[in-house]
Order: sequence, then C-alpha cells, then structure tokens
Amino acid sequence: MDSGDTMQVFELGERAIVERITQLLGNPVIGDDCGLVRIGDEILVATSDMLHQKTDFPPQMSGYQIGWMSAAVNLSDLAAMGAKPVGMLFAIGLPRDIETRFLDEIIRGIKACTDQTSTMVIGGDVDAHDELTIVGTALGCVNRENIMYRSGAKQNDLVCVTGRLGGAGAALFAMKQGIKCPADLSRKLFEPTPRIREGNILAESKVVNSAMDISDGLSVSLYELSRANKNIGFKIYAEKIPTHPKINQILNPAEALKTALYEGGDFELLFTVPREKIKILHEQINLTIIGKVIKKNILIEETTIEGKNHVKPLNERGYEHLRHRPPT
Amino acid sequence: MDSGDTMQVFELGERAIVERITQLLGNPVIGDDCGLVRIGDEILVATSDMLHQKTDFPPQMSGYQIGWMSAAVNLSDLAAMGAKPVGMLFAIGLPRDIETRFLDEIIRGIKACTDQTSTMVIGGDVDAHDELTIVGTALGCVNRENIMYRSGAKQNDLVCVTGRLGGAGAALFAMKQGIKCPADLSRKLFEPTPRIREGNILAESKVVNSAMDISDGLSVSLYELSRANKNIGFKIYAEKIPTHPKINQILNPAEALKTALYEGGDFELLFTVPREKIKILHEQINLTIIGKVIKKNILIEETTIEGKNHVKPLNERGYEHLRHRPPT
Repeated sequence: MDSGDTMQVFELGERAIVERITQLLGNPVIGDDCGLVRIGDEILVATSDMLHQKTDFPPQMSGYQIGWMSAAVNLSDLAAMGAKPVGMLFAIGLPRDIETRFLDEIIRGIKACTDQTSTMVIGGDVDAHDELTIVGTALGCVNRENIMYRSGAKQNDLVCVTGRLGGAGAALFAMKQGIKCPADLSRKLFEPTPRIREGNILAESKVVNSAMDISDGLSVSLYELSRANKNIGFKIYAEKIPTHPKINQILNPAEALKTALYEGGDFELLFTVPREKIKILHEQINLTIIGKVIKKNILIEETTIEGKNHVKPLNERGYEHLRHRPPT
Repeated sequence: MDSGDTMQVFELGERAIVERITQLLGNPVIGDDCGLVRIGDEILVATSDMLHQKTDFPPQMSGYQIGWMSAAVNLSDLAAMGAKPVGMLFAIGLPRDIETRFLDEIIRGIKACTDQTSTMVIGGDVDAHDELTIVGTALGCVNRENIMYRSGAKQNDLVCVTGRLGGAGAALFAMKQGIKCPADLSRKLFEPTPRIREGNILAESKVVNSAMDISDGLSVSLYELSRANKNIGFKIYAEKIPTHPKINQILNPAEALKTALYEGGDFELLFTVPREKIKILHEQINLTIIGKVIKKNILIEETTIEGKNHVKPLNERGYEHLRHRPPT
C-alpha cells in the first residue's frame, strides 16, 4: 500500500479500489455477491448497493421503478447465493425539492418488489441529500449445506443461465435512440425480477457448483466467475444464448447477440452444473445451457453463414459503476 | 395518504416522512433503533445510516474520523438493543477527485472502529458520487430473552445514562468558535465509542425495561422514549446530569448543562431500570441515575442558587437530519 497514495481514486479502476479496501481491512470481504455470517446451521447473507440519480435513474424511470430497482439489485445478489430474503433496509437521501407523491411512488416500488419476493422492509434512514441516493441492503438466509458460491466450478461442468438475455440492453438502446420499445422490454430494464425462486431451487438441488448474477452483463460475469474459480475457463456457444423474444423488434440478430453478451441489466443467474445432474434442474426451472467449463480462457464459438464453426476469445466488456448508463 | 401529495417532502418534517413511509409499507418498520429478524432463539438486528459530506463531515474531520463515525453511528444503534455485532456493510460514494490515501484513511477508521467492537466488514459497494456519501449497515445478534426495546419502561423506574454527556457538543461549540479544544473532547465529537460492551451487559442483566442511544441529544431522546412508551413521562434532575469533566474548560456550568441536554453526538445509552434492580448494574458498568419514570410529561428539576427546587417542562430540542451541524 506504498504507491498510488496521491492518485485520484477512480484512476485505479473499480476492481483495484475494492482490492485496496480489502487489503486494508485485512479480511476477505468482497468476492461473492454478499457478505456472510454463520448463525447455527444457517448462513446470513447480506448485501448493500448504492444507486443514485446521475448514474442509475434516467429521467424515463418512474418513482415506482426507482424504488423497485433499488430493491431488485440487492435481492438479485441474494438469489445468486440461493438465499431466502428475510428483510431489507433502505437509506434514502432525498433532495429537498422532491414532492411527497414522488417519495410515495418510490416506496410503492420498493414494497411491490419486496412483496413479490416474500420479504419486507425492516428498517432504514431518511436524510436530505442534493442528489437522490438510495442504498438498499438485503438480508437473507440459506442453509450452509445449500449455499452457492462463485467458486466451485469444475472442468466439463455445463454453463447455464436462467431466463432470456438482452432485454434490458435492447430497451436501453431503444430509449437512447428514441425508438418505441415494447412494454415487456421496458420492464426488463426498469423493473427486473430478481431470481429468488430460481436461486432457491438451484441451492436446494445441491447440484450447482458455482453461481452469480449477470446484472453487469454476461461477458463481464463470465470473467468474474473465472477469476473466482482459479484455473478454469469457459467455452460459450453463440447460438445457444437465449435472447429475449421481443429483442428482434429493435435489433438485428448480430446486435441482439452483442447486447445479450455485453450489456448489463439482465438480472438472470449464471451457474455451473455437472453434466450428469442437469436433468433435475431442467424439470424445475427455465434454464438454458450456453456452454461448458474448460481448462482456461474464455471463448465463444460462432457459426459463420457458411456453416463453419469459428472459436475466438470473448471480449471482457461491460460498464464499471454503471448498471444503466444514463441516456446521453 | 390523500393529502400533501404535491408538498415538498421535507415540509413534512422527518418524523412525518418516516410515518408516511411506514404507512405505505403496511408493516411497522421504524420505532426501535434497528430492524429485527428472528432466527431461532436469536434475533438478528440490523440498522443503516446515511452520512454525507455536506451534513456530517465538516472540514475539520479527518478521513480516519469519517470512517470511524460511519461505523460508530450504526454500532451505537446495535448497542442500544443489546446486540453483539456480527458484521458491517459499507456502500461508499466517492467523488472522482478524491485521493487514494484519503480513501485509505476512511477505511482505516472503519477498521479501527469495527475492530474495537470485535466485528468486521463483510461486504459493501463502491460507487462514484458527486458528494462523499457513506451508508454503513450494522448487523448484530441478541438472544430474544435479552433484547432491549425502546418500549417497556414502567412508572417509578430509574432513568439512567452511561458515560458523560456534553463532550461532543462542547467540542462542536469550540470548533465553531475557533477555541482550542482538549483532544478528549474532539474525540468525543469525531470518534465516539459505541457502547457495545455496556449494551451487552445491560441486555444480559435482564433488568433493563427500555433503552435507546442518545446520539440525537438527551432531550430529544427522552421525548422519543416517551413516545415509544405510551402513557409515561420522565422527571430528570439537572444536578444529576453527568457532564464531561473537560467541558468546563470551554463552557460555563449553565452552558454545559444545556449542551448535555440539547446537543447530539454523545453516543451514550439511555435506559430505565426498576429501582430495586439497579444495584446489579452499578457493579458492572459506569452509569448515572438522572431521574425517574413518572406518569406523564417530561420535566426537569433544577436547584436555584437560593437552594430552591424548580420543576419545569424540558424543551424538546435537537437537530433533525444533522448529527453534527457543519460549522457555519
């Protein structure tokens, strides 16, 4: 910790900042989606996320959606570890000129999202702040036999995702271009469903070796998952990526694939399962096998129009700090 | 919720905002210092507080103190319920021009405060933000037989506080006036010790009927405690208020009393105990009996210089939003 003291902090990049903090704290902090506390046979998992106007709440977003999103980003982190939510806290910094009904909308959105995942708000803080800033904290419990970590993937495991990808990215593109966007896609962007039910099923199945959410984008998440699992890589098949059915109303197939790979905002789960155990899961949740765990590198196989298979490294792309880039 | 929709939210006042939120959520949220989740015989208590540059971090405060304070405000809420900390999360919004060594100092302050209370940081989030904004979340556990709530005070109970009061307020006064301040007092203001040890002892004694912290000021806290306990009041004796020994270097006795009553920042505990059970506590912690629980009203008895006792209502005064008002 001898160098870089007078650098501006964001010159380091977000990952380096987190590593620096972790080193100073002297205990491993961040790596999985949530912090962990063991209570008997249960593990308490906890996660906090800061969202604020400038970065996370574009003007097209309603108060209800701001509230929903502030809950959803945290609940998605619980889902990734297989935890059942037991309560949420919200620290809300409100501009002094905000109208009461706008706050009401935010709270209704928070309530709708927590209701949908069978949890509730158990506490929080309200403060005056120049910029609307919401820090949600989600608490969940999971049996220590069932908890899913980012690490644990093994060679030849199948790589899977829940749901359909690219919907949020396509909606963001439409919004930026001023193109009319199907309501389904707008909701993917602004009211994503945290995959609590799916996460719980995956955890209880005890067949999942590693898991995380892909809210930062599939490509970035594959790299994160690879870093959490020393000495493994992934091979992904472009044709297997399950793009959202409405995405074709906005994007051509090549753009749709790029959006599904590189844009964030899809609150789906990415996980690995031994090949012989996948059947159990197929019967219980909507999942798609998109590739397999290999020895090293992160590769994508595409089929050219001539029908040839072409394997190349997947770019590590995504957007640090910005779940949703505000429209420019 | 039919009226006031187009009002600006802070016209309502902070308490009304919280009530409005609670009503919209449809479940009781705030009232005690922390949210609660039952896990077997243990109760998980959780609390979040938002601190930010403009309101909470005056320029005299070092990075280390900013970190310490961000941990301490939350740990103090755990102390008030008698919980043992099991972990903290921090969501930190950093201005882009902040230097790395300043962030390091913040983290060192967080670590020192969590170390001192035998807990650690288990997770969090780092984001770019125009204004330095830190939301700490503290998680703690307490056996459900031992937990202390705000409600439970009974007539004739003794009213007690831990430690000595007015130190933080006197330091704030000195800072604003440009008077040199003893280091002990500065630390009271900027590096308050959360009373985790005392809270744990009080909870384990099982003789405390009600408790809360007085970080918002003694007077405000007495009113809060009275509201949490329907149909009781307090009578406090001015001469019993334990002011900090160094306070006289800065304030005359009348000012010292006012500071101890009305200024926030003293992270001590306020609690009520049946008269016949106080002895057990006296042997274990540093406490002062400052008054008793009465049927109604919140009164203070002062002795005039002529030696006459004069009883009058205690003003409800304190500073909404502002734990420490920034120097003007």
